[in-house]
Amino acid sequence: MSIKLVSSTKSFGGTQSVYTHESAACNCEMKFAVFTPPKENHGAGPFPVLYWLSGLTCTEENFITKSGFQRVAAELGLVIVAPDTSPRGTSVPDDPEEAYDFGLGAGFYLNATEEPWSEHYQMYDYITRELPELIEKEFPVDGSRAGIFGHSMGGHGAMTIHLKNPDKFKTCSAFAPIVAPAQVPWGEKAFSNYLGSDTTKWADYDATELVAKRPSKAEILIDQGTADNFLVDQLRPELFATAATKAGQKFTLRMQDGYDHSYYFISTFIGDHLRWHAARL
Amino acid sequence: MSIKLVSSTKSFGGTQSVYTHESAACNCEMKFAVFTPPKENHGAGPFPVLYWLSGLTCTEENFITKSGFQRVAAELGLVIVAPDTSPRGTSVPDDPEEAYDFGLGAGFYLNATEEPWSEHYQMYDYITRELPELIEKEFPVDGSRAGIFGHSMGGHGAMTIHLKNPDKFKTCSAFAPIVAPAQVPWGEKAFSNYLGSDTTKWADYDATELVAKRPSKAEILIDQGTADNFLVDQLRPELFATAATKAGQKFTLRMQDGYDHSYYFISTFIGDHLRWHAARL
Repeated sequence: MSIKLVSSTKSFGGTQSVYTHESAACNCEMKFAVFTPPKENHGAGPFPVLYWLSGLTCTEENFITKSGFQRVAAELGLVIVAPDTSPRGTSVPDDPEEAYDFGLGAGFYLNATEEPWSEHYQMYDYITRELPELIEKEFPVDGSRAGIFGHSMGGHGAMTIHLKNPDKFKTCSAFAPIVAPAQVPWGEKAFSNYLGSDTTKWADYDATELVAKRPSKAEILIDQGTADNFLVDQLRPELFATAATKAGQKFTLRMQDGYDHSYYFISTFIGDHLRWHAARL
Repeated sequence: MSIKLVSSTKSFGGTQSVYTHESAACNCEMKFAVFTPPKENHGAGPFPVLYWLSGLTCTEENFITKSGFQRVAAELGLVIVAPDTSPRGTSVPDDPEEAYDFGLGAGFYLNATEEPWSEHYQMYDYITRELPELIEKEFPVDGSRAGIFGHSMGGHGAMTIHLKNPDKFKTCSAFAPIVAPAQVPWGEKAFSNYLGSDTTKWADYDATELVAKRPSKAEILIDQGTADNFLVDQLRPELFATAATKAGQKFTLRMQDGYDHSYYFISTFIGDHLRWHAARL
């Protein structure tokens, strides 16, 4: 379990790096990005750590080049980890039509049970176990102060992973998350392929189903743009809000007027999210 | 001279848009990006305007997706215009070897005099005349409060354009600029093709030559990373510093320890540059 440096760049006094390693969970080489804050301001750590899960089509690059998170992470003294969104490589199967919403770039942060996906698409184990172990071993982080957040498919990942592991990922927030994958086209396509046609198995990866059964003690922050093209058909935050309210899950859903699904939306509010997590870790 | 909207996205309360139009100067369709600040904070304008010139390989997209400038531009109430770096289209010739440092994506903000480049590569006229006229007609800007800044090849563009048009582009700053193109490989390749082998004609597009003859009354801000791979062979800010000092040009050259040539460097200091311009416009 050794990591290999791909690139390292100074940013806001800290260091933005990308690494590769051989993932046992995904049975292939995986990439992830890590930002470490400036030593001058914060010492050598250990630091609280946040895991960012990206959306469909993304790699470990999108968040670190487009969100501008480094400014506030440097200020607050946070380590930020941004993994890739799926296994990759010549041996990893993709959607037969190479669609953007399934296969490569669309791992949905679950453990696939169906062939041919199950051999590599084990993103749930990767994100919840293998990656944190590696991060806690190799970087100056305090694993007892960890949170998780993400965008769209990554918001789905963050919310489901938090709800199932509230002691490991203590804080949670999301931008324009898929909150009820079992009820929307993106989730139906991915889950039927990765998990099979028995929809009772889907509930384990559906934030709206999960929150009904196991609300966490944390307060979940959700930002959702009102001009998001995917709001009505794919995201449907009201489904989570209703279930969370019923279950006693604390949450804040902010409908952000005029914002779309892009990184322009994320960059506008990323500072708020980092401060939200930092105040609670 | 009409413009066509390509995209419009809310960002930090303002609007980040991209437009196309038929350029008379470049004799082809050109794209540019415009950010307008939030009306709620700043009213309807007119606003001071800054022109950002990007570096080699860039389009109008790089700066608006990677620098994070919108946060501070929204705060200060600035309009920011980011044009493409060269003419484009099937009729526009490129480097025969499609190299990154000449031809498409590498217009060098000059008026080419040599065939086949002269038909479209008229970026100096485009940036100094056609584009500002269009911007002042179509957007809520005060053309008497205009500045210019850029990165690398675009820093070269910003500095030469400011020095030749100090009353039109009153403020100037640059990230890792090419300051002496006539003396470095990038400039030698581009200038010999665009302007021909008579090197006396090159001086008109060389900031180090220009500042010796016509220093401006403004103070030019330059940020340069010490870990920039192009510092020694291509950028050489000391050449400009020496000439500027001799000519009485006010400037601040900040050597930024450990930063490279990337947008991680730009995003770290873009806020400083916007405040620098805003304070002087």
